[in-house]
Amino acid sequence: MKQAGSPTPAVSHAARGPVGADHARAALIALDWGTTSLRAYLYDASGNVLATRASTAGIMNLPRNAEQGGFDAAFDDACGAWLEHAPGVPVIAAGMVGSAQGWLEAPYVDTPASAEALVAGIVRVEAACGVTLHIVPGVLQRGELPNVMRGEETQIFGALGEEASATNAANSTDSARRALIGLPGTHAKWAVVQAGRIERFHTFMTGEVFAALREHTILGRTMLTPDRPDTGAFLHGVNIAREKGQAGVLATIFSARTLGLTGQLSREQQPDYLSGLLIGHELAGLDAVLVQQQSALAGQSLRLIGNEALCERYRLALAQFGCVQAELVKHATERGLWRVASQAGLVKPAAQAARAG
Amino acid sequence: MKQAGSPTPAVSHAARGPVGADHARAALIALDWGTTSLRAYLYDASGNVLATRASTAGIMNLPRNAEQGGFDAAFDDACGAWLEHAPGVPVIAAGMVGSAQGWLEAPYVDTPASAEALVAGIVRVEAACGVTLHIVPGVLQRGELPNVMRGEETQIFGALGEEASATNAANSTDSARRALIGLPGTHAKWAVVQAGRIERFHTFMTGEVFAALREHTILGRTMLTPDRPDTGAFLHGVNIAREKGQAGVLATIFSARTLGLTGQLSREQQPDYLSGLLIGHELAGLDAVLVQQQSALAGQSLRLIGNEALCERYRLALAQFGCVQAELVKHATERGLWRVASQAGLVKPAAQAARAG
Repeated sequence: MKQAGSPTPAVSHAARGPVGADHARAALIALDWGTTSLRAYLYDASGNVLATRASTAGIMNLPRNAEQGGFDAAFDDACGAWLEHAPGVPVIAAGMVGSAQGWLEAPYVDTPASAEALVAGIVRVEAACGVTLHIVPGVLQRGELPNVMRGEETQIFGALGEEASATNAANSTDSARRALIGLPGTHAKWAVVQAGRIERFHTFMTGEVFAALREHTILGRTMLTPDRPDTGAFLHGVNIAREKGQAGVLATIFSARTLGLTGQLSREQQPDYLSGLLIGHELAGLDAVLVQQQSALAGQSLRLIGNEALCERYRLALAQFGCVQAELVKHATERGLWRVASQAGLVKPAAQAARAG
Repeated sequence: MKQAGSPTPAVSHAARGPVGADHARAALIALDWGTTSLRAYLYDASGNVLATRASTAGIMNLPRNAEQGGFDAAFDDACGAWLEHAPGVPVIAAGMVGSAQGWLEAPYVDTPASAEALVAGIVRVEAACGVTLHIVPGVLQRGELPNVMRGEETQIFGALGEEASATNAANSTDSARRALIGLPGTHAKWAVVQAGRIERFHTFMTGEVFAALREHTILGRTMLTPDRPDTGAFLHGVNIAREKGQAGVLATIFSARTLGLTGQLSREQQPDYLSGLLIGHELAGLDAVLVQQQSALAGQSLRLIGNEALCERYRLALAQFGCVQAELVKHATERGLWRVASQAGLVKPAAQAARAG
């Protein structure tokens, strides 16, 4: 995704460095605060990222208990130096920090969820240092199989930001078109976005199930980590799930063991084969759901957000399902946080930084 | 399954007790020797079980390393006293003891597998005490998704034994009819048996995946064990998998968490709901495979082997799929070991015990 010429504030990355002169230009601090990690971004008034901080102080991994000021301690550690040099800069945060186990609960916004609805759902918590954090809510899809996201909604609006603005300028019918966005990971999300709203989404526990199977079942016992990922074994797994997966993932995963017993899969091939099986089942399940909605993966043009190597695996797998247009969107998190902050009036793009309310 | 009037040797259970006068009548020692447990049975010449022993000395849990005589130690511990009082009694064993990690590998017999083929595949290992163990091989189904069993083949022939003999006497067309046999558990097996042979089978890692999800993923964090199983929550899970499971198990399991977040499922209901989801996906997958074979679960008459409480859960779940004739077969393990030993000539039913070769 190119940034030049985009009406959305460009997000560029300065090298992470010590607090310096740049910070006089600081216009926003934004936090991507999840379960196991905290990432902080410092922006100038044009939305350029001046500096970043990353730590393992996720909400389940705070430096001390929440009751003993664990959130304050993690926040100070990540952003204290920035705030010292740029007092009064507005602060926004998204992710599990807004969950019931977070700093302050930001109740879910229902689907279909627009960026405006997210802004309206922002809650404010005052840190011990006197700074107000603006916490972005997650999104809830009600129903027999409810779905929730916290953090991904902000990434999705980050990925959409450029296009939404571009299509507004060029062709307004485009912005009404459905977009499919995938966020591979521990809990992979697939969201259908239409007219700038998250209409519905699905969660696949692919990453977490892979880890649990590998580390805590018999399948892991015969596995060895290969020197480099084995794409052939991965695609073999994808295609078994796609073509021979009728019995479901509870059945096909056993073949990671039996193909080893019969000498058809080496120990080093088994991890990638299992990964392929699970991602293949995820995509087959997604495809089945899309077909119910008069759509399909084949011929679909979609976007991926997340770890580049993992997204590349998904691109390979998607191609097996006839989907060859899967574009990796970079910096969706930073873009999304900036976009929500802008929409909330915390910053005025390409102008002087607004003061947080 | 009634035993009276059956031409198959009846299996009855004497109370487990110390070595006594009964042992003079001992005709066979049989071992069900798995990964995490060892069960031993002492039979009289009519196939009645005189005594049983059970320990946790599975092949992955031997009292000492295999290289240091771990198998001998476990065998002596389980059967030493019996052998002292009944020297020369033949010994048969089935299960993982015949795997590559077992005492001696008994190479798999290919499907379709008859009892005769199992007998022909028996391997013999001499214990340090001089006794010869006859180890029954497992069954292998080759293909793109190979399947293996070790131990279950013996249980299946135990469940079939009575019927096979009965139908031989009464109606030989019955014995050519297909039978479907389910063995719920850590690795659930579903076998199609025809004309006394295991034609094909499927493995579902349902039990092991449930344990891994509950103990090693986010799903377990909000769960509490209920005082008694919650059948309503279990059936809810089964029916979600059956009716709304198109996206697959990687997607539906996340609802165990989200239904909790939305107040629709209590913490105590979540374990049974998750169990229902997994068993429901297993049966939906089995049904899909049966349909490919011009069959279906609906209207099917089948047999279940295994833990009674677990089989009862499967009966409830099967009824949701229109299968209301699921009969629990008791003592399939003891019956099967006796049957294979008889067929191997190790014992002569209703006569004096044969000596092991």
